Amino acid sequence: MATMLAPSASTFDDAFPNSRKRYVDSIAGGRVPFREIALSDSPDGTHNHAVHVYDTSGPQGHDVVDGLPAVRRPWIMAREVSELPDRDQSLGFDMPAGLRRVVLRGAGPVTQMHYAKRGIVTPEMDYIAVREGMAAEFVRDEVARGRAIIPANINHPELEPMIIGRAFHVKINANIGNSAVTSSIEEEVDKLRWATLWGADTVMDLSTGRNIHETRQWIIRNSPVPIGTVPIYQALEKVGGIVEDLTWDVYRDTLIEQAEQGVDYFTVHAGVLRRYIPMTAKRMTGIVSRGGSIIAKWCLAHHEESFLYTHFRDICEIMQAYDVSFSLGDGLRPGSIADANDEAQFAELKTQGELTRIAWEYDVQVMNEGPGHVPMHLIKENMEKQLEWCDEAPFYTLGPLTTDVAPGYDHITSAIGAAMIGWYGTAMLCYVTPKEHLGLPNRDDVKTGVITYKIAAHAADLAKGHPRAQERDDALSHARFEFRWRDQFNLSLDPVTALAFHDETLPAEGAKVAHFCSMCGPKFCSMRISQDIRDEAARLA
Amino acid sequence: MATMLAPSASTFDDAFPNSRKRYVDSIAGGRVPFREIALSDSPDGTHNHAVHVYDTSGPQGHDVVDGLPAVRRPWIMAREVSELPDRDQSLGFDMPAGLRRVVLRGAGPVTQMHYAKRGIVTPEMDYIAVREGMAAEFVRDEVARGRAIIPANINHPELEPMIIGRAFHVKINANIGNSAVTSSIEEEVDKLRWATLWGADTVMDLSTGRNIHETRQWIIRNSPVPIGTVPIYQALEKVGGIVEDLTWDVYRDTLIEQAEQGVDYFTVHAGVLRRYIPMTAKRMTGIVSRGGSIIAKWCLAHHEESFLYTHFRDICEIMQAYDVSFSLGDGLRPGSIADANDEAQFAELKTQGELTRIAWEYDVQVMNEGPGHVPMHLIKENMEKQLEWCDEAPFYTLGPLTTDVAPGYDHITSAIGAAMIGWYGTAMLCYVTPKEHLGLPNRDDVKTGVITYKIAAHAADLAKGHPRAQERDDALSHARFEFRWRDQFNLSLDPVTALAFHDETLPAEGAKVAHFCSMCGPKFCSMRISQDIRDEAARLA
Repeated sequence: MATMLAPSASTFDDAFPNSRKRYVDSIAGGRVPFREIALSDSPDGTHNHAVHVYDTSGPQGHDVVDGLPAVRRPWIMAREVSELPDRDQSLGFDMPAGLRRVVLRGAGPVTQMHYAKRGIVTPEMDYIAVREGMAAEFVRDEVARGRAIIPANINHPELEPMIIGRAFHVKINANIGNSAVTSSIEEEVDKLRWATLWGADTVMDLSTGRNIHETRQWIIRNSPVPIGTVPIYQALEKVGGIVEDLTWDVYRDTLIEQAEQGVDYFTVHAGVLRRYIPMTAKRMTGIVSRGGSIIAKWCLAHHEESFLYTHFRDICEIMQAYDVSFSLGDGLRPGSIADANDEAQFAELKTQGELTRIAWEYDVQVMNEGPGHVPMHLIKENMEKQLEWCDEAPFYTLGPLTTDVAPGYDHITSAIGAAMIGWYGTAMLCYVTPKEHLGLPNRDDVKTGVITYKIAAHAADLAKGHPRAQERDDALSHARFEFRWRDQFNLSLDPVTALAFHDETLPAEGAKVAHFCSMCGPKFCSMRISQDIRDEAARLA
Repeated sequence: MATMLAPSASTFDDAFPNSRKRYVDSIAGGRVPFREIALSDSPDGTHNHAVHVYDTSGPQGHDVVDGLPAVRRPWIMAREVSELPDRDQSLGFDMPAGLRRVVLRGAGPVTQMHYAKRGIVTPEMDYIAVREGMAAEFVRDEVARGRAIIPANINHPELEPMIIGRAFHVKINANIGNSAVTSSIEEEVDKLRWATLWGADTVMDLSTGRNIHETRQWIIRNSPVPIGTVPIYQALEKVGGIVEDLTWDVYRDTLIEQAEQGVDYFTVHAGVLRRYIPMTAKRMTGIVSRGGSIIAKWCLAHHEESFLYTHFRDICEIMQAYDVSFSLGDGLRPGSIADANDEAQFAELKTQGELTRIAWEYDVQVMNEGPGHVPMHLIKENMEKQLEWCDEAPFYTLGPLTTDVAPGYDHITSAIGAAMIGWYGTAMLCYVTPKEHLGLPNRDDVKTGVITYKIAAHAADLAKGHPRAQERDDALSHARFEFRWRDQFNLSLDPVTALAFHDETLPAEGAKVAHFCSMCGPKFCSMRISQDIRDEAARLA
């Protein structure tokens, strides 16, 4: 198993010409990554300063069999934690030596919220202050109030801390994971590295097929970003896929198993209450959340309330000891335009708010998952209700898709809704790939999904007025106006594609300095004419 | 020249499996096209009615050397028109016999607005009433008030009439046209047919290179949709590309030449006034409209007001005699996020309003072009000002692009803005392809641009509450819930791509009836579980 993994085909240097990693030291000794994009001089000789952008690509050049360096280790060991026996060995998993880690558990709550409420700026908060360009005390305050979360399991020392909250950069999540039908561990680890290279801020491992435990171990050990999971998937695998056989005990053990591996946030569909299920009976598309449908089926089979709800406080106690954050699932999210903003959806959202407040009693960090399929005119209501009912906990939405009519292009139908709801205040956007509704995304789909969602998130940052957002737009537009083609490509979200598209019609190297392109040809280039008249226009002013 | 054109590689039948063209007769004898998508029965035996969608693909199976049938001819000949000599012959153009048409000119105004103001429902309005599902009298009233236009040159008898106005389906325009650097007539005609096959409601021929006149003749004779142009491009070619040598006489002759060929709308940048040019001097990206930069350069060179503005009433007199509609250009639109909603842009918009009212004096139909590059939070202001200053004339925007950082993906950066401004009231969206800012779009780019903009337009129709919009979403979601895979593909905007994506992971024919897909595999399919529990849930209700 261990040695089969090939290094990812594309490196940081391939992906980002003229860029290099730069690290800024945080007070606590963290090395905060940025990507520095070097620019050429303007035609008039003016020097253009390099642009620094948020970077999720993680440490480069490490063998996946060794995992990434455990950069957070000293910070974590300074907390009240104790070491546990190696579960992989006892469970019979044969992981490579480089992927084994000491397993830790807090003696009490060890969550970022716990420290924040007590006025303590953790090294993670300090790191994030540098990363986001905000004051550390502001970061602490947002976490203390529950308006932002730092998903950072004490068993994920490889993590480069990041924050999810609406005062910060809008984040994006990429889903990976195998299913019973296709994919392998190698492919999933490669997708992880690939997704973070292009800009995924968190990655969810939604594996449901074979080797769930090993796949997750490989992923976490190689992930510089928070990893989320939906533990009910593995619990269901453990009972042979028979929903009726799920029990609280199996689920609890799964939570602990995953918390010990280092999962940073758990999607828990605890808001799907038994009494809400009949509300979905007349829907166009019923229940479209996998987790939601599993829980609903269990409730109906047992004539009981969901064990996720009845054991919610037990779950909180487990999660506070590892600092696993909640992503309170929206099991009744609408799966079609027809079902948007209906009774079932909003009933669950209210319960998500109730559960949010319970989790906060335990200092467990919480975000709330949201839809789904929502036409544009109904998007804002989702954000407003979530802010009100869930006391401003971060919102984390899937899209939303603004129409159902374009399978094969749902990265686009959903980017429209994602950009809008990001502007309205959603803190993280779960990507949708072109394969949504049709099949499991491959490597190309993952990249397309990530770039599309970086667009949505950045458009939202601009609209929200994030202080660092417009610098990159301005630098790129300035390069465009000055025909600094290479700079224009290098400043873009996907330099390789921009260059390739330009090469298609004007492949000659000389065209990279030409004062026109194939769109208009030399005589009709408005930018060239515009430069010609600029001096004269200035005289008239 | 004539016989080199190969038939388009993809036919209606290839593109739209299980679809067929259906025609509904209008009162005046028009045959109004729809695409009928046949559906299979539900698993419980319920019959699912075919879905009818708006169709722009035009008559199929005609040789491009013959052009399309002149379906509007009898309606046009019933008006006060006179025949003119064949200009192609006198100008020395050797067009194939099948592409020659009698050239007509109105004895007086022959515009749709002229008739509408006099209470006359034209055959075109009647046709559109069927096409849009609205009352003919309502169509007439919207045209009379200037809130909608029907671009329909009396020299474009091949046209299937369509309407642009915010009470109707949001429309999309596809730009084609060669440049001095690349492309040929064959490619451009093929792009026209390809763009309308996938859903372009109008096509602009922006050719600036060789053979402008012949290219346009081939395009118009083969176009079932309105064709727009920017006549200043050809005028500039006529004076050897020397902006300073442009004159009113050359421009006027070009307008007449194109009006006689059958161009349905002209982009005229008459709102770029001399005194606005200094306002662009401090911009990030100056003037990015080709037409705008040409006019600005001319004004500065001659120290005179633009001849488009000083001769605007002359232009109106020409256009009313052929029923060419104005698309009042936004020559000072922002070309970057930094320049959005600035003084120059809004100064021109106010002048567009002034010119709109002048054109209406001549019964010439008008729409107004809009930006460009605009961050989300500044989009609404564009729509509000346009409605107010331009007296509710239809707005026609390019995107807008909501960020500058993604060359190679500007179909997506702009689809976000396009969907939003469409919802706010924009009547037509000018597509942006992935090649924007990088090169001339090829066939694949044209398709991607069209499908992306069909998504934006449809999302806007849903949000506006267009009475016919949601039917298709509902039919597709219903098919999805029932695992009618083929129906799901066939109801989508791009059936071929949806099928291909599904085939990538589950190519077997049996998978097209399977109750799961590769995303989740059989055990984790929420839709299957949801169906399992639906009956039980209904009992609990």
